[in-house]
Amino acid sequence: MKKGIAEVPGIECGVAFGGIKKTEKKLDRPDLLVIATKEPCPFAAVYTTNDVKAAPIKVSMEITGKVSGIVANSGNANACTGERGIADAIEMSRLASQLTGRGRFLVASTGVIGEPLPMDRVRKAIAEAVKNLGKAKGEEPARAIMTTDTFPKLAFKEGEGFVVGGVAKGAGMIDPAMATMLAFIATDAKVEEEVLKKVLREVNEETFNAITVDGDMSTNDCVFLLSTGLGREVGEEELKGALREVMGSLAYQIVKDGEGATKVARIKVYGAKTRQQARSVARKIALSPLVKTALFGCDPNWGRIVAAAGAAKAGVIEEKMELKIGGYLLFRGGRVDYNEEEVAKYMRENEEVLIELNLNLGGEEFTYLTCDLTYEYVRINAEYRT
Amino acid sequence: MKKGIAEVPGIECGVAFGGIKKTEKKLDRPDLLVIATKEPCPFAAVYTTNDVKAAPIKVSMEITGKVSGIVANSGNANACTGERGIADAIEMSRLASQLTGRGRFLVASTGVIGEPLPMDRVRKAIAEAVKNLGKAKGEEPARAIMTTDTFPKLAFKEGEGFVVGGVAKGAGMIDPAMATMLAFIATDAKVEEEVLKKVLREVNEETFNAITVDGDMSTNDCVFLLSTGLGREVGEEELKGALREVMGSLAYQIVKDGEGATKVARIKVYGAKTRQQARSVARKIALSPLVKTALFGCDPNWGRIVAAAGAAKAGVIEEKMELKIGGYLLFRGGRVDYNEEEVAKYMRENEEVLIELNLNLGGEEFTYLTCDLTYEYVRINAEYRT
Repeated sequence: MKKGIAEVPGIECGVAFGGIKKTEKKLDRPDLLVIATKEPCPFAAVYTTNDVKAAPIKVSMEITGKVSGIVANSGNANACTGERGIADAIEMSRLASQLTGRGRFLVASTGVIGEPLPMDRVRKAIAEAVKNLGKAKGEEPARAIMTTDTFPKLAFKEGEGFVVGGVAKGAGMIDPAMATMLAFIATDAKVEEEVLKKVLREVNEETFNAITVDGDMSTNDCVFLLSTGLGREVGEEELKGALREVMGSLAYQIVKDGEGATKVARIKVYGAKTRQQARSVARKIALSPLVKTALFGCDPNWGRIVAAAGAAKAGVIEEKMELKIGGYLLFRGGRVDYNEEEVAKYMRENEEVLIELNLNLGGEEFTYLTCDLTYEYVRINAEYRT
Repeated sequence: MKKGIAEVPGIECGVAFGGIKKTEKKLDRPDLLVIATKEPCPFAAVYTTNDVKAAPIKVSMEITGKVSGIVANSGNANACTGERGIADAIEMSRLASQLTGRGRFLVASTGVIGEPLPMDRVRKAIAEAVKNLGKAKGEEPARAIMTTDTFPKLAFKEGEGFVVGGVAKGAGMIDPAMATMLAFIATDAKVEEEVLKKVLREVNEETFNAITVDGDMSTNDCVFLLSTGLGREVGEEELKGALREVMGSLAYQIVKDGEGATKVARIKVYGAKTRQQARSVARKIALSPLVKTALFGCDPNWGRIVAAAGAAKAGVIEEKMELKIGGYLLFRGGRVDYNEEEVAKYMRENEEVLIELNLNLGGEEFTYLTCDLTYEYVRINAEYRT
């Protein structure tokens, strides 16, 4: 069995099927998840920076101090739902507290934007999930937050004397009018809240904030990190290392499951003056529809990559750039001779394509993950919602 | 006959077929264009802001004072071609001057990135085009700069006692590894160089800089505006009005011919605090792959539009926004009741879809044009280059 958040000491998970998505046939998976900690514990969170924030995001952002867990649903984003949405998100959080008899609960939702939550079903599902606390193991919590994800996303890292486990969902701004990347991570490491917050923020920058499927930012994105404190005391760097593995793995799984994606590209920009410069350039390449369609076509089209690097307006110098795909040098301040068929073959035969761009301006670097842009992406997103 | 740049008094156009694109079968259209003015005349230009600029851009940017015309080729962008590329662009410009016996020529190229120009063919083609000066009329100059454009783009405005005419090309960052939007505009209005520059910069902001096909910025984009001065003296506002019509029409034609596009969306953001805020929000919506695929699917998916507006991080307030598609109100601080089938029908039956977003924060506005994202876009751009 694969391990995830349920395998972290001090964490109990329960799931239920509430039929939360309107007009949907019965899912073969649950749509409500309760993650509870045995004792109130410190947490850290990062939220979407979209000006339009879903109700559960607004409600969770108000929560400080210790929490006793997370309550989350799929099938409905509870976004753009006004006052009623806020009241519903608060009720979800309160119900989880009352029914477990524990402290405060963070709340998250994913699914269609603009529909009010069917609260009668949500209430029943929360009650059932609480009753089932402790029973959901391995993939089960990840399955409860899937929408059009094609596989559940979980990761687990065994540190020395502590563990980190997490689940995530996301495959673009999924399904017509659906949204969201969610990630729930827990550790039993004994860490101070300040450290937890700092570490989450930093690792988030280089994992979830370094991936893109379609450049669309959701109204519901959030990452929660809980620390049950049942393990040993762990220093900042050590926790960071473990968290990097778990969050890096979850981020990779999201890109791999990108809507319609057949390939993942790892875009490493190095030799930059600053990390910010490397990031801007890597991000611009990762977002370019032309680079993403070339990836789908297994076309080692260096002109598009170099043009995208320039379009970042981050101060790259054409004459200094060196570009490699899969280790093959394609560009060094200008076209170089290479075997195009060989590079195309590398792209065809590998599910992960490595693109390395040396700016030759300094010593900083940043790596971004993206996926290809395919017919299937268009099909998924152009199909009429009903 | 449709009128374009050749119909502006004082302008002569000549075209030729040089076979500039490598390994290409004989085109049914010319690939070299010379636009010459009878007398040296003032000009204004705007260029791509990409850090990676093609050789002709670098060469044209050095030209100040008066010019006698423009020499341009399609089939090869002369971009990422190093020292040799610069020398070739300079030679193109000089050849046009020598063979016409006139002043300096601006130079532009469009086509594949990274291939050196086949200068023997380019030289012959320039000589032939110069010989043909005055013969290319109507659509002909526009045809000479097409790459995968599916129709020639030209526009003409008859002012009172003066005219403005122009040609353009562009359909995304066209054809595998190809680039570029080019626009060449002329007027016979008598205007000072300073005014010409100011007016071009301003009108460019609300026309060519307010369209997107795929958000990719070319290495070769440029707009040239020549004034032959054979007409009457024209004030700034009057020239602006005429230029707005010509450049607006050309910009519209480029979006309409967007790679794989079936629809144009006019995204009007108003009630903004500042023009910049309106622009950021409109641009973010115009770039969103989710909005663009929904447009293709004729899905009045307001959630994606509202989420994209928030993602601009320009300070929109969810509760204040009002969204209309084709005049139908879909959102007013939250979901409103509307007939979804009726709005979908409007989207299916109109080639141009009007999206209006009122931010209710002030009195400024900005309108962006975009096209839909279709299977055909993916096909065009994923196909292997050879």
